[in-house]
Amino acid sequence: MRAAVMRNKTMVVADLPEPVPGPGQVLVETIACGICGSDLHALLHAEKLNESAKASGVPFVFDIDRDVVMGHEFSARVAVLGAGVTNVSPGDIVVSMPVMLSAEGFAAIGYSNQYPGGYAERMLLTAGLCLAVPAGLDPRLAALTEPMAVGLHAVAKSGIKPGDAALVLGCGPVGLAVIAALKLAGIEPIVAADFSAMRRSLATRLGAHDVADPDEETAIAAWQRVDGIRPLVIFEAVGVPGMLDRAMRDAPRAARILVVGVCMETDAIWPIVGINKELSIQFALGYTPEEFSRTLAHIAAGDIDVSSLITGEVGIAGVPEAFRTLASPDAHAKILVEPALG
Amino acid sequence: MRAAVMRNKTMVVADLPEPVPGPGQVLVETIACGICGSDLHALLHAEKLNESAKASGVPFVFDIDRDVVMGHEFSARVAVLGAGVTNVSPGDIVVSMPVMLSAEGFAAIGYSNQYPGGYAERMLLTAGLCLAVPAGLDPRLAALTEPMAVGLHAVAKSGIKPGDAALVLGCGPVGLAVIAALKLAGIEPIVAADFSAMRRSLATRLGAHDVADPDEETAIAAWQRVDGIRPLVIFEAVGVPGMLDRAMRDAPRAARILVVGVCMETDAIWPIVGINKELSIQFALGYTPEEFSRTLAHIAAGDIDVSSLITGEVGIAGVPEAFRTLASPDAHAKILVEPALG
Repeated sequence: MRAAVMRNKTMVVADLPEPVPGPGQVLVETIACGICGSDLHALLHAEKLNESAKASGVPFVFDIDRDVVMGHEFSARVAVLGAGVTNVSPGDIVVSMPVMLSAEGFAAIGYSNQYPGGYAERMLLTAGLCLAVPAGLDPRLAALTEPMAVGLHAVAKSGIKPGDAALVLGCGPVGLAVIAALKLAGIEPIVAADFSAMRRSLATRLGAHDVADPDEETAIAAWQRVDGIRPLVIFEAVGVPGMLDRAMRDAPRAARILVVGVCMETDAIWPIVGINKELSIQFALGYTPEEFSRTLAHIAAGDIDVSSLITGEVGIAGVPEAFRTLASPDAHAKILVEPALG
Repeated sequence: MRAAVMRNKTMVVADLPEPVPGPGQVLVETIACGICGSDLHALLHAEKLNESAKASGVPFVFDIDRDVVMGHEFSARVAVLGAGVTNVSPGDIVVSMPVMLSAEGFAAIGYSNQYPGGYAERMLLTAGLCLAVPAGLDPRLAALTEPMAVGLHAVAKSGIKPGDAALVLGCGPVGLAVIAALKLAGIEPIVAADFSAMRRSLATRLGAHDVADPDEETAIAAWQRVDGIRPLVIFEAVGVPGMLDRAMRDAPRAARILVVGVCMETDAIWPIVGINKELSIQFALGYTPEEFSRTLAHIAAGDIDVSSLITGEVGIAGVPEAFRTLASPDAHAKILVEPALG
């Protein structure tokens, strides 16, 4: 089958062996798979990703000297059932958390040498994790379940509640997912900041009440202009060194900072600023199965305008170029890989 | 009056003008005042302390080119009442939060050019903040209300609850106050680590169920040996660069880290470790008035064995030498300054 493969730290298109479903697995045909910022990170910083996983005791490490087919935000059509599978049928359109459960333990679909992700024509999924895409929902939109679930989880982890204010730093897909989840949680005001006019416009569309261009007005100044008085939760969705320190210095007393932007580098903070203001910092990753399935339901119900997030669609052949395009992401939110496009 | 004064970044003994109580103030005679690690920090890093206060929007800044009489952990005898004071009488033994409230706003007693702290024979206090030391309680022990309240507050801020485990990094006065508060909160096990045998012994006396000498066994290994399974809250009570990063790398998934050690320097962390493990970091400072008064009640009831914490007593003349001694603090927990000693 054809796949876009991470090989020797580059992205190439190659032919790979057909996956064969084992017991409890299903072979699926990828319909759509979003390109995630983490995949861009992984291509540039695979060693660091592995090193951090080891330092954190996370079991998801892969051998960067062997092929990896990335892609963990997907929808797919069930093709072949492995032994014992009864909960799905060939032809079903499904989404799934990108996790392979097996007797050997866990594997991360999309960050594994063994299990290809959604940048391939076909994948293996854990049958028990497959969720049927509700009838009438475009499978391309259903593919956004995974990144939107990240926002739901971050908002839940933050403990934010109606009456609090939210300041979202960065309106890439993660920041936009957070904004959508904040809107679902009834938070007001939601203030968001991004250098890109296109992303600020998407932020407004997804629920931000006000947006700031940091070239014109700092994020914290925008919040002070709009609100400045409610308990504040700052969502750091940029993930580059210096953002956390900036957020700590800007934060009002007793603010919470939810870190959902993945900073791969070591980063400097000034702890006494945190102490003087009694700040709290909560780091968030992923989502629970319940959050994942709730996100799919929200998308099906039209509660999250995911269609506006899709700013590009490419076939497998287009993946290497899409990765280059996303290195300067100002013009994009989410690019979908759709094997049917070639 | 005689006082130990921070002057030109050194500690000298000097004669200062007698303070005169204004409306709502009382003139008190200092009975005992603990030397706090923050005072050692302030003597060494006064500019940085001021800089961090400004960066944090904290109003407590002082002019390092003018005299400061430090000392904010005190008990005292009321001598002269200012106008309108009715809640205390001359001769009363009191403690107080080290805060001067006035029409001009707040001042921090002990970090102020205007209001001398407890390293002086006499001080001004806010009458409304004075708490009577219960009859029968040694005023020297009551002076430990302030540092012990820091522990109560840190434990409250951490959200720890029975069923969780606690790991306390550092058994200086702050770490010991945390241990005492954890014991009051019914936490078990409490595991504590310090290089000093004397401090480990105090940790055990105040409530630690197990202690580790990091030269022999890392703190996290000690917790794994003793427990390793309960939700863990790590109390960082050392406050030197690298401790937070170490705690983040050592922490189990979803652990909370309560930072109560004051790190004056910028510090490097690896955010992706926080993300991979979904850690939370809560910074804590000070205490509430309610926590302060509850701490006094605990000390009066004998719930906290503060007497064991007093490892030295000096007169005002002995303060400069005590500061030098505490620069290598392994042999000490708390040194009290008692003007009656000379």
